[in-house]
Amino acid sequence: MNCIDIINKTKRSQKLTDEEIKYLINGYTSGEIPDYQMSAWLMAVCLNGISEEETITLTKVMRDSGDVLDLSCIGGFTADKHSTGGVGDKTSLIIGPVVASCGVYMPKMSGRGLGHTGGTIDKLESIEGYRVELPFEQFAWTVKKTGFSIISQSGNLCPADKKIYALRNATGTVDSIPLICASIMSKKLAMNTDCILLDVKYGSGAFMKTYEEACVLAELMEKVGTASGKKCRAMVTDMNTPLGNNVGNALEVIEAIEILRNERKGALYELCIDLSANILELAGKGDIEQCREMARDAISSGKALEVFRKTVELHGGNPAITEDTSILPQAKYSFKVKAVGNAVIKSINSEEIGMTSLLLGAGRTEKDDQIDMSAGIVMECSVGDTVYEGDTLMTLYSSVCSDFSQIAVRAVNAVEFQ
Amino acid sequence: MNCIDIINKTKRSQKLTDEEIKYLINGYTSGEIPDYQMSAWLMAVCLNGISEEETITLTKVMRDSGDVLDLSCIGGFTADKHSTGGVGDKTSLIIGPVVASCGVYMPKMSGRGLGHTGGTIDKLESIEGYRVELPFEQFAWTVKKTGFSIISQSGNLCPADKKIYALRNATGTVDSIPLICASIMSKKLAMNTDCILLDVKYGSGAFMKTYEEACVLAELMEKVGTASGKKCRAMVTDMNTPLGNNVGNALEVIEAIEILRNERKGALYELCIDLSANILELAGKGDIEQCREMARDAISSGKALEVFRKTVELHGGNPAITEDTSILPQAKYSFKVKAVGNAVIKSINSEEIGMTSLLLGAGRTEKDDQIDMSAGIVMECSVGDTVYEGDTLMTLYSSVCSDFSQIAVRAVNAVEFQ
Repeated sequence: MNCIDIINKTKRSQKLTDEEIKYLINGYTSGEIPDYQMSAWLMAVCLNGISEEETITLTKVMRDSGDVLDLSCIGGFTADKHSTGGVGDKTSLIIGPVVASCGVYMPKMSGRGLGHTGGTIDKLESIEGYRVELPFEQFAWTVKKTGFSIISQSGNLCPADKKIYALRNATGTVDSIPLICASIMSKKLAMNTDCILLDVKYGSGAFMKTYEEACVLAELMEKVGTASGKKCRAMVTDMNTPLGNNVGNALEVIEAIEILRNERKGALYELCIDLSANILELAGKGDIEQCREMARDAISSGKALEVFRKTVELHGGNPAITEDTSILPQAKYSFKVKAVGNAVIKSINSEEIGMTSLLLGAGRTEKDDQIDMSAGIVMECSVGDTVYEGDTLMTLYSSVCSDFSQIAVRAVNAVEFQ
Repeated sequence: MNCIDIINKTKRSQKLTDEEIKYLINGYTSGEIPDYQMSAWLMAVCLNGISEEETITLTKVMRDSGDVLDLSCIGGFTADKHSTGGVGDKTSLIIGPVVASCGVYMPKMSGRGLGHTGGTIDKLESIEGYRVELPFEQFAWTVKKTGFSIISQSGNLCPADKKIYALRNATGTVDSIPLICASIMSKKLAMNTDCILLDVKYGSGAFMKTYEEACVLAELMEKVGTASGKKCRAMVTDMNTPLGNNVGNALEVIEAIEILRNERKGALYELCIDLSANILELAGKGDIEQCREMARDAISSGKALEVFRKTVELHGGNPAITEDTSILPQAKYSFKVKAVGNAVIKSINSEEIGMTSLLLGAGRTEKDDQIDMSAGIVMECSVGDTVYEGDTLMTLYSSVCSDFSQIAVRAVNAVEFQ
């Protein structure tokens, strides 16, 4: 077998055999195939695509490039959930406790944020003392104990994906649906939970800009998951508008707690109920309506909040945050962005809100940037609201930036009036 | 400027600016841009193409990556000729002397063969003592003296092409018309002759398999040459059948001498007259018919042979080869491939003849393989001939291989009967 022949086949839209895909991925992971051959192949995939069967094989080979977890020690039905990323997406912090309190275990590994999208691990690190790194045994033990734990990606999971992802980032080969699918699903399959729920976002703040693209990715991921022996479902959800009211790390933890305290309803709440219900249904807990009811009960009864509290405690964080969110990092400076006239809000651009939050210090431009945990935005208005001159549209928070003038201009540009 | 943005533009079929092309090529040549980014861009070019304007800029930037020769010391109109490569193509050895004897200087750099196609430098090295490497001054002096000299590619000409070509070979990105054009034309433009004649081959033994593809490449190269201030013409010629009767290094030198001695006519002779006449016309020596006549006279008068003789002598070779070709390397072994029935010859597959010649020892599979200068094939039949059982179709020659049984089978497969 020869790497150039493999590149040529994909270049000519010919189908690769399983053996060829194995040769390519394993050769690249071990260092026998150089970066420059892999990047040529990745570009051919970007432009020509590969078949569903090839994507399934690619994903499995990437999964098998490292450890595949054995979660049998948890002793129950396990679920994983993945969002393709967005602005204000704190759903994992809510769904995990909800399904756990309904008897479904959620052992989850999450990532950090980059650019305008946030990362769950960054959000959890705004809780003082919360350990995002745990040895596998302690992670499994925590899940067994509370039903839910989130740690940062660790261990030797999918080394092929790590290497390929870094190369894609450096070679303009990120935006390929089969490559995105293989990257996400190889990690999910290496986690090896019984079921996988995928939340595929579309819209201004998401990686997939259109509903149609998101559907293609969702369908492909579902097929790959199912073909790999998992109960797998992919939902396509809107990320044109930021999810919930708060954007920024500590601010999002606060909003998650408020949802779990049953104090907040709205789009974020409904989405969390929906995603949780789908996991519960995959877990065989009933039909979708029954599962929706169970999810609502988990919140209204306080059971989900209790799971969250215990999990935070077992991770070394202060469980009192569930009662008193002011323990979380507070911003030194704030600024109210006000309406300059009377109008109805037509849209709120997620990507712009994400970028504003980044500028306030809540995100990273480069991988190793420091984050201001207190920074972010609280939206005081929603799409469809009528606002009057002087009304607060949103409040900006930061501990690293006290002059909001430039950022406020950017923030207000995110809001489109009718 | 950013390399990933440049890759993304080509990936999205957006046009690059001159500055972007300069940034990419110069950055790659200097080592600032890594192989893996360049190969991703090359694959995007292979699959999406680039515009004519981008190809012109790319070629000029590659030309300017190294030295551009100053041939003014030769003191006359200079011409270069390039063939895209084929089987039995010894035209440079004939055309150079022909146009030189008509007052057009041909300073030429040639390459070595790889795979089934031969290289002019290998052919010249079959002449004992012929020095293929000369310092520029001596090269120019030889051209001034005889009108014609061929040396191997040397000096710091087009380092960008050298680096990109090696990468294309290793990444399945060879077959792209704009990249082929830029590679050929950057070297021709760095040679900096007043006119350039391009012989674009199509057919089984050529890189371009169809006439249509060859026309696209020819037209593009002509445009790039003209846009760079050169008199430039590209001709599209047939390489379905090997050119002439002899294939193999010394055997091809013998055939070239026989043509120059006016002893052979046929397709090879006619092509040489045609190519020479086009150069003479570009040089302003008359209209195409007058130039054809001049080319024929150059051969029939013996003037062209005299140029060849003198050039060989000035390069250190034995000029007596023009009278006695038996001085050239002789094969130890030979084998006559005979017809097994009566039939009319429908075609002779160039690529198969080229591969057979390679197996006899006349070519290289790998860059550093040793060549058997005496090896090759002499065709004893032509397309359209009726052959009878026992007639010799071709004679195989080799000094390294005495058992012809396997090779003869391959050789005979190259001949298709009606």
